[in-house]
Amino acid sequence: MIKTDILIIGAGPTGLFTVFEAGLLKLKCHLIDALPQPGGQCAEIYPKKPIYDIPAFPEILAGDLVTNLLEQIKPFEPTYTLGERADTIDKLDDGTFIVTTNKGTKHHAPVVVIAGGLGSFEPRKPQLDNIADFEDKGVAYIIKDPEVYRDKKVLIAGGGDSALDWSIFLADVASEVYLVHRRNEFRGALDSVEKVGELSKRGKIEVITEAEVTKLHGDDQLEAVTVKHKSNGESHIAVDNFIPLFGLSPKLGPIANWGLEIEKNAIKVDNAYDYATNIPGIYAVGDVNTYPGKLKLILSGFHEAAIMCQSAYQRIFPDKRYVMKYTTVGGVKGFDGSVKEAKKEVVKSIV
Amino acid sequence: MIKTDILIIGAGPTGLFTVFEAGLLKLKCHLIDALPQPGGQCAEIYPKKPIYDIPAFPEILAGDLVTNLLEQIKPFEPTYTLGERADTIDKLDDGTFIVTTNKGTKHHAPVVVIAGGLGSFEPRKPQLDNIADFEDKGVAYIIKDPEVYRDKKVLIAGGGDSALDWSIFLADVASEVYLVHRRNEFRGALDSVEKVGELSKRGKIEVITEAEVTKLHGDDQLEAVTVKHKSNGESHIAVDNFIPLFGLSPKLGPIANWGLEIEKNAIKVDNAYDYATNIPGIYAVGDVNTYPGKLKLILSGFHEAAIMCQSAYQRIFPDKRYVMKYTTVGGVKGFDGSVKEAKKEVVKSIV
Repeated sequence: MIKTDILIIGAGPTGLFTVFEAGLLKLKCHLIDALPQPGGQCAEIYPKKPIYDIPAFPEILAGDLVTNLLEQIKPFEPTYTLGERADTIDKLDDGTFIVTTNKGTKHHAPVVVIAGGLGSFEPRKPQLDNIADFEDKGVAYIIKDPEVYRDKKVLIAGGGDSALDWSIFLADVASEVYLVHRRNEFRGALDSVEKVGELSKRGKIEVITEAEVTKLHGDDQLEAVTVKHKSNGESHIAVDNFIPLFGLSPKLGPIANWGLEIEKNAIKVDNAYDYATNIPGIYAVGDVNTYPGKLKLILSGFHEAAIMCQSAYQRIFPDKRYVMKYTTVGGVKGFDGSVKEAKKEVVKSIV
Repeated sequence: MIKTDILIIGAGPTGLFTVFEAGLLKLKCHLIDALPQPGGQCAEIYPKKPIYDIPAFPEILAGDLVTNLLEQIKPFEPTYTLGERADTIDKLDDGTFIVTTNKGTKHHAPVVVIAGGLGSFEPRKPQLDNIADFEDKGVAYIIKDPEVYRDKKVLIAGGGDSALDWSIFLADVASEVYLVHRRNEFRGALDSVEKVGELSKRGKIEVITEAEVTKLHGDDQLEAVTVKHKSNGESHIAVDNFIPLFGLSPKLGPIANWGLEIEKNAIKVDNAYDYATNIPGIYAVGDVNTYPGKLKLILSGFHEAAIMCQSAYQRIFPDKRYVMKYTTVGGVKGFDGSVKEAKKEVVKSIV
């Protein structure tokens, strides 16, 4: 059982900054995230994209934002459960919570903060009638172990980096690789696009554009697919595997069943006071919450985290009164023994 | 008459970032500040002090924060009325406002945002019965023109950088310089403290410590002061000028008489929606406002500015519907013609 003061679900920018604000109040944090590393979307989806509206950064790459936040919270020694999704929550008689992940890891804390962004990212699936029947029987949406495809006939669908990169990789593993895409144009790194073009000329990848998979065939296991061409009718292709790589789309996921008030796929909070949800002890900050006038901006998540931590402090220490000290005055004292503080002014006697 | 979309009173960090958020909505801003340069306290009082709680800056000097914000808002070409204090506000029949400064400069805008921080900084005055009688008759709290003190007998009170620096400067101007301080220790730059010590040895400054001015004497004009020593009784010193330099303290000032709801020296706002004050069209953001759970943090001012600008947009364009676009997606288009945007992904045809 992992124990902490504030259990943060979601290790994106807002979740990370929560560690800092909690740390100033001497509260320890543990973060759970379904992704294998902290940083949320910024690290996973667009680390090289510039963001222009983080205050005092005329421009910062999303990945650098995460790096900076990790550096800023380091003194407060956050701990992580990564690559696991928070699945269930139980409220104990004493008002504290147990949160259990999809892998069974249990976490115990008096305060839970959902900083889940747009939700946990799940693969976008094509709308094909019987696709669910073939999941794990030839159809996969994520490639976990490429060795599974050794000497198989594999059809990848998609036009982005994932589809390009995996086609290149599997060209040396699978016996046949088809890459099917709705358009003629691919959106991906230039060298990947060129590499696929070259492998296509050498007959290692068969690229089929302006086309899409419309039917799946097979008894128990996938055996073939129908590909419909924009101009050219249909073709029947015998394959062992169909891997649509259409990107990730966020889903609120199991949190939607925690008894929280949900509105437009987001968690309703009390923005007039502390970003608390309808369940005392559970807060929601950042893109995952909603309230009148909500803006899904990273900078708003930062503010919400600061306010929420004050309320969490009151909940954890109902009898203590916290007096806020500015970091310019009081400095930052890390749990790791580190101290950052402004240089004291010179104090000296003249006479 | 200066005309703008959003008139911002206070050019500290929150006021400056308001220009950015307004700019994304294509609204132009003009800022009024009593200080001679933008940046508020951060620029005027502690530019060299590190701040540790600006998100994604493990440490940033207050002056650098201002520099970065000025760089970030540059594309939106803010204009300024500096060194003037916003004194009066008039609401016109059409719901717009005229704000006039202490120097008579007039500004016209449909929306006024008070981002006044802790207020405009005014000198701290010693508690002496008849001090008001001698103001401008020998007593001054700020040194505007040092030539006024040529060949005069001047007594400076205080133990900080201002008191030290002006004592040094006036040692070559005045006929006599007294420096009176309550304690033996001075808090100022090391070289200033040493310089004063040296001038004291040479008889150019008479340093009197553990003492304070308790009485002022004179008919119309100041003629002498009583200095009370901690251990040593009182002394009567003939002086032409008494200049207490006890630092600046923030005052809400004339804004307090604008008909806004005030609570604990701050302006009450509706934090549940848009940080509007009780007067429609006037908002308050940053340290100058108050609401349940308010934290006087720079990062909260940034959030409040973003939310407030959305509401200001609705007020200015009641019939338009603004659809927020992330800067990572839509980029930043400056009023100066500049465009910042993420590089487009490579789009290329393979076949």
